Amino acid sequence: MYKKAEIIKNVELYKFGNPIKTDAVIISVDIEKFKLGNSIEGIELEKGDNSFKIKYNLDDSAKIYGLGEAVGSLNRRGKVYKTYATDDFDHTPGKEALYGAHPFLIIDNGTEKIGIFIDYSGEIIFDVAFSDKKILEIEISDLNFDMYIFKNSNYSEITKKYLELTGKSYVPPKWAFGYQQCRWSYPDSKTIKEVAGNFKKYDIPVDTIYMDIDYMKDFKVFTVDEGKFPDFKNFVKEIKDMGIKLIPIVDPGVKIESEYNVYEDGIENNYFCKNQNGEDFVAAVWPGKTHFPDFLNSKVRKWWGAQYKKLIDLGIEGFWNDMNEPAIFYTPEGLKKAFEKLNEISLKDDIGIYDMFALNEVMNSISNNRDDYKSFYHTLDNGEKILHDKVHNLFGFNMTRAASEGFDEINPDKRFLIFSRSSYAGMQRYGGIWYGDNKSWWEHILLSIKMAISVNLIGFLYSGADIGGFGENASAELLIRWSQAALFMPLYRNHSALGTRNQEPWAFDEGTREILREIIRIRYMFLPYIYSEYMKAINEKRGYINALFTKFNDENVYEIEDQFLVGENLMAAPIYEQNSTGRYVYLPETNWLQWNLSKEKLRDVKIIDKGYHYIKSKIEETAIFIKENSLVVIGEVQNFVGEKKEDSLTIIGFVEDRANYCYYNDDGVSKEYEKGEYIKIDIEIISKDNDYEIKISKEGNYKHNIREINFEIYNSKESWNKRIILK
Amino acid sequence: MYKKAEIIKNVELYKFGNPIKTDAVIISVDIEKFKLGNSIEGIELEKGDNSFKIKYNLDDSAKIYGLGEAVGSLNRRGKVYKTYATDDFDHTPGKEALYGAHPFLIIDNGTEKIGIFIDYSGEIIFDVAFSDKKILEIEISDLNFDMYIFKNSNYSEITKKYLELTGKSYVPPKWAFGYQQCRWSYPDSKTIKEVAGNFKKYDIPVDTIYMDIDYMKDFKVFTVDEGKFPDFKNFVKEIKDMGIKLIPIVDPGVKIESEYNVYEDGIENNYFCKNQNGEDFVAAVWPGKTHFPDFLNSKVRKWWGAQYKKLIDLGIEGFWNDMNEPAIFYTPEGLKKAFEKLNEISLKDDIGIYDMFALNEVMNSISNNRDDYKSFYHTLDNGEKILHDKVHNLFGFNMTRAASEGFDEINPDKRFLIFSRSSYAGMQRYGGIWYGDNKSWWEHILLSIKMAISVNLIGFLYSGADIGGFGENASAELLIRWSQAALFMPLYRNHSALGTRNQEPWAFDEGTREILREIIRIRYMFLPYIYSEYMKAINEKRGYINALFTKFNDENVYEIEDQFLVGENLMAAPIYEQNSTGRYVYLPETNWLQWNLSKEKLRDVKIIDKGYHYIKSKIEETAIFIKENSLVVIGEVQNFVGEKKEDSLTIIGFVEDRANYCYYNDDGVSKEYEKGEYIKIDIEIISKDNDYEIKISKEGNYKHNIREINFEIYNSKESWNKRIILK
Repeated sequence: MYKKAEIIKNVELYKFGNPIKTDAVIISVDIEKFKLGNSIEGIELEKGDNSFKIKYNLDDSAKIYGLGEAVGSLNRRGKVYKTYATDDFDHTPGKEALYGAHPFLIIDNGTEKIGIFIDYSGEIIFDVAFSDKKILEIEISDLNFDMYIFKNSNYSEITKKYLELTGKSYVPPKWAFGYQQCRWSYPDSKTIKEVAGNFKKYDIPVDTIYMDIDYMKDFKVFTVDEGKFPDFKNFVKEIKDMGIKLIPIVDPGVKIESEYNVYEDGIENNYFCKNQNGEDFVAAVWPGKTHFPDFLNSKVRKWWGAQYKKLIDLGIEGFWNDMNEPAIFYTPEGLKKAFEKLNEISLKDDIGIYDMFALNEVMNSISNNRDDYKSFYHTLDNGEKILHDKVHNLFGFNMTRAASEGFDEINPDKRFLIFSRSSYAGMQRYGGIWYGDNKSWWEHILLSIKMAISVNLIGFLYSGADIGGFGENASAELLIRWSQAALFMPLYRNHSALGTRNQEPWAFDEGTREILREIIRIRYMFLPYIYSEYMKAINEKRGYINALFTKFNDENVYEIEDQFLVGENLMAAPIYEQNSTGRYVYLPETNWLQWNLSKEKLRDVKIIDKGYHYIKSKIEETAIFIKENSLVVIGEVQNFVGEKKEDSLTIIGFVEDRANYCYYNDDGVSKEYEKGEYIKIDIEIISKDNDYEIKISKEGNYKHNIREINFEIYNSKESWNKRIILK
Repeated sequence: MYKKAEIIKNVELYKFGNPIKTDAVIISVDIEKFKLGNSIEGIELEKGDNSFKIKYNLDDSAKIYGLGEAVGSLNRRGKVYKTYATDDFDHTPGKEALYGAHPFLIIDNGTEKIGIFIDYSGEIIFDVAFSDKKILEIEISDLNFDMYIFKNSNYSEITKKYLELTGKSYVPPKWAFGYQQCRWSYPDSKTIKEVAGNFKKYDIPVDTIYMDIDYMKDFKVFTVDEGKFPDFKNFVKEIKDMGIKLIPIVDPGVKIESEYNVYEDGIENNYFCKNQNGEDFVAAVWPGKTHFPDFLNSKVRKWWGAQYKKLIDLGIEGFWNDMNEPAIFYTPEGLKKAFEKLNEISLKDDIGIYDMFALNEVMNSISNNRDDYKSFYHTLDNGEKILHDKVHNLFGFNMTRAASEGFDEINPDKRFLIFSRSSYAGMQRYGGIWYGDNKSWWEHILLSIKMAISVNLIGFLYSGADIGGFGENASAELLIRWSQAALFMPLYRNHSALGTRNQEPWAFDEGTREILREIIRIRYMFLPYIYSEYMKAINEKRGYINALFTKFNDENVYEIEDQFLVGENLMAAPIYEQNSTGRYVYLPETNWLQWNLSKEKLRDVKIIDKGYHYIKSKIEETAIFIKENSLVVIGEVQNFVGEKKEDSLTIIGFVEDRANYCYYNDDGVSKEYEKGEYIKIDIEIISKDNDYEIKISKEGNYKHNIREINFEIYNSKESWNKRIILK
């Protein structure tokens, strides 16, 4: 039934049929290592005519995590999910698929944990103990796929193995951890200057401003509308001189328009996806009718990657790849069929309610229609034609791969900001993701927390939700609480849709603006910690935002889906309910230091016992928690990353006995850190009688400029401060 | 600007312009009592050309409750709401209007509480500190309306005054508190017999089975499809002999079909709403093209009310009035316009994306289009024609009023079950409501709790959500937790939509069936308490499901929106999260007795301190809490209400010092209770040294048959049992 090999220690590959290579996995196996097999212990295999079912019996207490970007509870048990990249702007609880397809999950049967990764790029349905509460059933819509089984007792170890298999996560430039401002749309340079000016006027730190679809000339990818953005290169520089980078959107659909060079290039070189007649496939998206580049082909990727140079040459250093499920508004064929049906109905003498329902069905099936995804083809490097539907989930993956590989060509040592809406397992190597078109719903703050935890389990570390919500209208309170909830998320971007209420920090009242300003300043204050923890997590192949159950051996933490660890030692427990000035928090294992953040300089801290608590936080307060015997690091607030020297660090900690912190830094912009150009400063504090010993050691070649380290240490008896000047 | 009068103590009426009489208010004011006024203290009045704005400044700490049936947090602060009865099957967080229109809210500025009731039956927009976080702005789309201002320091007193003004709440028959089973649809007598048979086979109590739209012949209201339900009268009896009542749905749209008597009657007597040309207005709903009865006219109501007799004569004793916003699938005019637009687009040479968006907009505007509501008229009793849009919110109100007044004619002393989808303030006099087309979402369990609390504040005591969720698919766990969460809700009905997973108690696995059976049995065990508390609340004009803040003078309870009081002494704190086996609970003021309900006979109880707790509840457990020095009453489990004699009561309580309980009962079917045919048994327990004194006294004429009262009393030192045989 399958061929089997141990691919790395404790990870087995089961090869069913003859799957196409998705490139999710970076480790190849010697064909001679394979053995034939027919059954897998504990797993029922059921081969159908065109699909394959995998069944796994679950204990009553079994928990199931994974599936990356998905709506619902973190423990996936009790719902059906589907991996089929879907542009859906309505993330309601029942939705089975979103933009990303991450067919990986972890079954926790108590001590034993089993990871299952189905490397198949078409539709997979995961019935996670929904139809039958004791059975996990995975239905793969093909007979050809790879299945990897991970066995380990530890969540982090499974993530680590998974990342050994699928590749180390993407590292953005350090400025990508600053505050980012987006809107659909800031349509011209005048508006962007105003926005940038407001940040300066109100003294609010910011690192980027986004350019949504309207910056392009007629939505033509890799063009800039010169009418709205005259002398774009100079404009980019002007904004950059304020410390702000402009981040344009990039969509895959290439407008069908003669004399448009991307289109002409693509036609000339046969770079577009084909329909069954071998003609270029036509789908309408923002620019109207377009062709889709065939990203599965390496020549096309190379060509596409080189296109980014057009914008890079104008001073651009970051991009977001959108619409790459690929979203389809309609195809001419689909629309024709729909209109035929509409006409048929409209000509009836008496239109009845069932006609009406049919009408609705017709309309609802025009966009993102599965039949359209079944009507076009890719041409692989070996010349093989493959139906899009079978590799649907690889489209966004390969678009972003094209960008990433392009950057490597254009400027190999430079880090670019790149993140994508659609993704597949392994895409973490090339860029980050954002969670797509959420809404200004309180429920979506909580969802963004669960998503962050879940995508971190599979290496999508650079990620985040649109703060304040993309669709619908945000209240001031919602935006404040969301900005607090996202305080430690790598991608810290406020974004909102056309037609909704503005949600820049100054779009509300003055009081709200001041609170948001302080939150953003606190974000910058924590950048040394955020960056340090992020880079260590990347290098050690683990999550940066982590569920409590990945760290604490405590039955109570399994059901906690609204608290999370940032790195190793800091716990966040955001408020995500309207009109709330408090929430319940569980503190596992030890005592914790509670820190109510509200102003940069204010240390409103206290030690609280382990266990269940109700923690009050006024609208301007964000409570965070530092574990006993651990340290965090903060720095000076900057108006943008790199504004200041970053030469003074402050270590804040809760030390009863001993604690250490490894501070990581590098230049933040190049890839030299891969060659040893980084610094790790290991700081250890040991409590001795009524005194403390501080040990500081360093590793790495990066010429850091840290001049002094300040200490603010708390314990149950006292607090103390100390300043150490570094040689 | 207005005329003003004190209508009852602490309730002032401000009459703006010359409003039509909605009949929400049952107290009339002598015209001579009115004084003219121009300003109201603390309220800014802003008269526009066709609308009126009322602005109220809010403290930072002000809380705002009310608006009855609405999506969102119980404290409404931070969202925009609209009263305009809307058929919406997607109760997502941003929705501004649902089926019911309840333009009443309470502003709590600390000690002072102000109730505002805008008696206007068209659209009102409530911007509850959304646009400006310090301002409540109410925009009435008319210059003619009544505003009532209530001033009191107590929530319950405001509800009481509101009910004095708008009328005492509806009392259903006692069997309407039993378990109810619904499905869209049990389409024929065979299916219903199977469903009824399964309740008996699996020994699960049940009182009603519902008949959704498919029981009618071609969806014609007040008909029964004889093909699917041969010899309907006998069939109703056959099911009733099993202890089960059949509850048919009633829709307002009357199918246009000659020789159909309801249609012919309506045409002959001019009973239907008219378009601007004076022709009968045509709207398509389930039966296809229909006319809407003009329920605002008393003659039409009388006629409509009498129609129910057709089904009552066949043995029916309860109804649910649906679709009475009124929902409109389409109007011929609307559809014509839409097709014109569609045609226009389809004839274009090159259909672009903006055409596509226009297409979507056209389609989305076909159903429940405001223009349609602005295109038909009512004829009031005085002959005045009034545009539907201005009285839109009175349609469901008056349909249900017609039913209720009809029942009074048909059988004046009998209680019928009647509840409605649409409602307006004051409709609580005529029937209950259910919360419409929710979904099988965990979030909708929590929403149903908030809705219950909110509609109880305005007297809609007989109410409930579709347990398990109407749309989408329920998991076994969701149905169990929802059945637990709704345990004390008056309307205890499991309902689900066509095309979704079945969710009768036996539709899942055997273990789930057994858990659901026990929950339903526990519901029946509590019926003496539920009915007693319900009737006392009705008679005393207060809520039955109550927010903690209505009872406890404790700042911490204001933000608790997921716990509620059932009557006076019992607190519920349901689990509403997937894969959770516990939740946080706050216990105010005193110690409480925690009772983990799982099996009827099991008393898994313990005393816990006031304050914050994390309470574990396995999937089969429902934790409830009895306040110190209070009692609840339970009875014997019946397979349907009235099966057994109800001659043995058990008092369960937590008594440190003294506690009393007033048990109320009556015949449960007639209205004789209004004439004194009820019994109130007052039971008092006084702790004396190491002994107890029990006092029992009675009031009322109802010849109850209570033979014995058993006591199971707990306190911090001991527990004791006692049986008292009544003379």
